[in-house]
Amino acid sequence: MPILDGLLKYADENNIPFHIPGHKNNKRAFKELEIIKQNLYRIDSTEVLGLDNLHIPEGMILKAQEEAARAFKAKESFFLVNGSTCGIYSMIMGVTKPKDKIIIQRNCHRSVYMACFLGDLNPVYINPTILNEFNIAASIDEEEVVKVMDKNADAKAIVLTYPTYYGTCCNLEKIISEAHKRNILVLVDEAHGAHFYFNDKFPKGAMVSGADACTVSMHKTTPSLTQTAILNIGENIDSEGIRFMLRAHQTTSPSYIFMASIDSARYIMEKRGEKLLDKLIDYIADFKNKVKDIDMFKIIDISYKGRAKIYDIDPARIVISSQIGGKRLEHILRYKYHIQVEMSDINNVVLVCSVGDTKESFEKLYDALKDISINENPKMDCSIDIKFLEYKTALNIKEAYYKKGRKVKLKESLGLISREMVAPYPPGIPILIPGEVITYDIIEYIEYIKSKGIALNGMSDYKGEYIDTVEF
Amino acid sequence: MPILDGLLKYADENNIPFHIPGHKNNKRAFKELEIIKQNLYRIDSTEVLGLDNLHIPEGMILKAQEEAARAFKAKESFFLVNGSTCGIYSMIMGVTKPKDKIIIQRNCHRSVYMACFLGDLNPVYINPTILNEFNIAASIDEEEVVKVMDKNADAKAIVLTYPTYYGTCCNLEKIISEAHKRNILVLVDEAHGAHFYFNDKFPKGAMVSGADACTVSMHKTTPSLTQTAILNIGENIDSEGIRFMLRAHQTTSPSYIFMASIDSARYIMEKRGEKLLDKLIDYIADFKNKVKDIDMFKIIDISYKGRAKIYDIDPARIVISSQIGGKRLEHILRYKYHIQVEMSDINNVVLVCSVGDTKESFEKLYDALKDISINENPKMDCSIDIKFLEYKTALNIKEAYYKKGRKVKLKESLGLISREMVAPYPPGIPILIPGEVITYDIIEYIEYIKSKGIALNGMSDYKGEYIDTVEF
Repeated sequence: MPILDGLLKYADENNIPFHIPGHKNNKRAFKELEIIKQNLYRIDSTEVLGLDNLHIPEGMILKAQEEAARAFKAKESFFLVNGSTCGIYSMIMGVTKPKDKIIIQRNCHRSVYMACFLGDLNPVYINPTILNEFNIAASIDEEEVVKVMDKNADAKAIVLTYPTYYGTCCNLEKIISEAHKRNILVLVDEAHGAHFYFNDKFPKGAMVSGADACTVSMHKTTPSLTQTAILNIGENIDSEGIRFMLRAHQTTSPSYIFMASIDSARYIMEKRGEKLLDKLIDYIADFKNKVKDIDMFKIIDISYKGRAKIYDIDPARIVISSQIGGKRLEHILRYKYHIQVEMSDINNVVLVCSVGDTKESFEKLYDALKDISINENPKMDCSIDIKFLEYKTALNIKEAYYKKGRKVKLKESLGLISREMVAPYPPGIPILIPGEVITYDIIEYIEYIKSKGIALNGMSDYKGEYIDTVEF
Repeated sequence: MPILDGLLKYADENNIPFHIPGHKNNKRAFKELEIIKQNLYRIDSTEVLGLDNLHIPEGMILKAQEEAARAFKAKESFFLVNGSTCGIYSMIMGVTKPKDKIIIQRNCHRSVYMACFLGDLNPVYINPTILNEFNIAASIDEEEVVKVMDKNADAKAIVLTYPTYYGTCCNLEKIISEAHKRNILVLVDEAHGAHFYFNDKFPKGAMVSGADACTVSMHKTTPSLTQTAILNIGENIDSEGIRFMLRAHQTTSPSYIFMASIDSARYIMEKRGEKLLDKLIDYIADFKNKVKDIDMFKIIDISYKGRAKIYDIDPARIVISSQIGGKRLEHILRYKYHIQVEMSDINNVVLVCSVGDTKESFEKLYDALKDISINENPKMDCSIDIKFLEYKTALNIKEAYYKKGRKVKLKESLGLISREMVAPYPPGIPILIPGEVITYDIIEYIEYIKSKGIALNGMSDYKGEYIDTVEF
C-alpha cells in the first residue's frame, strides 16, 4: 500500500506541521474531531432515510448550511466536498455564460483559470503589485482596478484573491463599492481567509466587506479535513445558476465524513475560535519580534501595511525570506529540525498557522531559525527583475485548448499562439496564457527567467526549450 | 453540529447496512481500515516533501496507481477523489471536443448527461431493454447498438453502464468488438462493478472485456471511503486529454485520506477479495433460494439471464420486487427490523452487498422478509406501461441551458423546447432532455405517469404541472 505506507512514514517523523490542513494532526485534541475519528466508518454513510442529500438539502445538511451562513455572514452557504476549486468554478460559472467577459487577477489561483476554460469565458486581467524584497505578488491597486472596470463596463464579474497565500490583503471594501457602482459582481477566492470571521483582530472577511460570493477553504485555516470548503453567497446574487453549477462540479456521492468535518470545524471556530486566535496572534507576534533580530531572515509583519498597496495583513501567516534561499531553508528545517513548512520558493518559505498550533511549535521554530543563522552561510542572490509584459489575446483559453497543437522551439515561436501557460514561480504571475501571442519580449523574458534558475510553472517542457503552440 | 449529530444518531440505530459504502462500517474489522482510522489526522496531509502530488504523480501516488492498474488490467489507473462523477467527466471530455457526437444510453447516470453539458456534446441515444416484472431498465440489445453505431459512424465514443444499479449486464464484449470495428471508443460507467476484477465467478470486468476506459467506484462494492473511485484506461486511448480533464474536475487539494483508502481497498481486494467474494456468493445464493418460496417477493437471480437481453448478472446484487411496494418495504425493514436498504422505488428495493457483509446479515434479512410476508397484506398494483417515445433534439443540453427560460403550464407547452429533464422513476429513462421538443405524446405520457403516482425526477415542479421551456 504505497500511499498508506508513505503517509505513516511521514507521520512517524513527527514533524511540526506548519502546513495545511489546519487541524494540525489534532494536536489540540478537539473533542469534536475525535468523535469523527472514533466513528469514522460508522458515520461514513450515504443518502438513506433521514440523512438528507447535499444536492437537494432539506434536513440536517440544510440546517448545518444555515448555521454556516450565520457564522460567515452570508445569505446562503453551500458545503463543498471537492475543495475550494469547485466553489470557485461554481461562483464564476454560476453568474456567467460562454464568451462573457470577466475581470480576474493575472496571478489568480489555477482554479480561476480552469473556470475560464470550463466556462468558455473571456478574461481581462489586473496585474498585482509586487513586494520586491520578497519577490511576491502582494496586493492590487484599487485605482488600477477602477481603470480596468471602466474600460470593461460589460464585465459580468470581478474575481479577487483575498488574502493572498502570503497573508496580504487588498482594499477589498473599496473595490467592492466601486464594482457595485458599475453593476459588476465581486467574487472572492478567500481560500486562505476562513478564520477572518471568528476574531475581530483579523482583516474583515469578504462577506463582511460586501462581496457577492466567496469561497473559503475549511481545511486551510480551520480544523477540518483536507478537501473541504464552503461557498458563501450574498443578497444580490441569483442562486439558481450557482446551485446548478454546484451539482455539476461535485460528485453525486459526496462524503458524509467531509460534511461532518465542515460542520464541526465551523462549530469549533464559533465556540473557541476567538480565544484560540487571540493566543495564536500573541504567539506569532512574539515569534516575529524575535526573528527580526536575526539578520539572515526577513519576515512580513504588520509594518508592511501600506507598502505595495498592501491594505491589511493576516497576523497568522508567516512568510520568511532567507539569505540561504527558501528551498534550502525548507530542507534544513525538515531534515535537521523536524519542522515542515507549507511551501518554499527560491527566496521564501511560507508557514500556515491555525487554531491547531501551540506555543511550543513557535518556540521550536524560533530556536531552529536562530541555530540556522549561526551555522549556515548566507549566499543567495535573490533579486529577480519582475516585469509585466504586454499580453495580446488571440483566442480564449478554451478555444486555444481545442485547437490542434504543435511543439516548437521557444526561439522559433515568435508570433505564434501559445497553448500553454507560462508562469515563473516566484512570483507566480503568468507571462503567457493559452490563446495569447508569443512576442519577442516574452521569449527574451523566459530566457532571463531560465538563466535565474526559476521554475517555469505550467510549461510541459519544464526546461523551457519547447513550447506548445496553435498549429498555424 | 446538525450533520455530525444526525450521523451519530443514525449510527446508534445500529441498522444492518445493505447500502453503500462497501466497507459496511468495517464490521469485518479489516486491519488496513483500522490503521487509517487510528491515524486519521496524522495522515491527512498535503503535498509536502516526499508525499507526491495527485496531479503530477511521480512517487508514492504513481506507485499506488501502478498497483491499481495491474489489479484492474489497465494500461494506467488514476485515483479519483471527487467520486466516479469526475472519472466519467474526464473519460468523456478527454476524448471529445465541443459539438462532437457521442452515443449514450438514454438511461445513463446523471453524470453522463452532465458531461454532455460541460463538454458541449451532441449525444444520440440507445434505449435500454425493460424487465417488465420489475419495471427496470435491465440491459441493452447489442443489435440495436450496432444499428445506432451504423447510423452514427461519426460518433467519437459510446458510453455504457455496466453493470446496472440492478446488477444486470449487457453483452459488453460483443458491443466492444462491434464498436472497435467502427473506430468508436468504448467508455464504461462501471461504478457498480469494481469487485468484478477480484473473482472469476462474477461477470467479466470492463477492462478485461476490452473497454478503452472505465470508471469504477471504490466505495460502492469495495471497502473504501465514500467519494473514492478509479479511472482505468486501456492501450488505445490517448491519455493526454484525460489527464488534462482530471486536473480540471478534481480539487487542487485532494484528500490523502481518500488516496490511502483507495490504495488499501485495492490491497484488501487483492489479498482477501477472492475468498470473501466466494463466501458472499454463497450467502446470497442461499438467501435468494429461500426468498423464492415467499409469494410476496420476487427476486432477480441467475435464472433471469437471457431475458430482456440480460447477458450476465452480478450475483452480489439483490433486487426485490414486493407486493407491498418498494417504499413501504424499505420503511418496514428500517423501522421494524433495523435493516437499511440502498434504494427503493414504487416496486422494488435494491440492496448493495460487498466483502464487508457477514452471513448473519443475510439471515436477519431473510427472517425479516419472512415475518413481513406473514404480517403484511399484499395490495400493490405495480404495473406501469413503460413507453419509449420519439425524441426530437432542437438544441444540445448546453445550448438549452444557456437559453432564457420560461415556465409554462405543461398542458400549454406543446411544440416548445424543454429546458428540463423529465425522467419518471422507475424506470429512470428520461422522456425529455433539455433541448428536446415537447410533443403531444410526451405531455400525455407525463399525465399518465402522474396518475400512477410515480416520481418525475428532474422536474423543478415536482408535481409536474409546470415545465421550464426555452423562451420563444
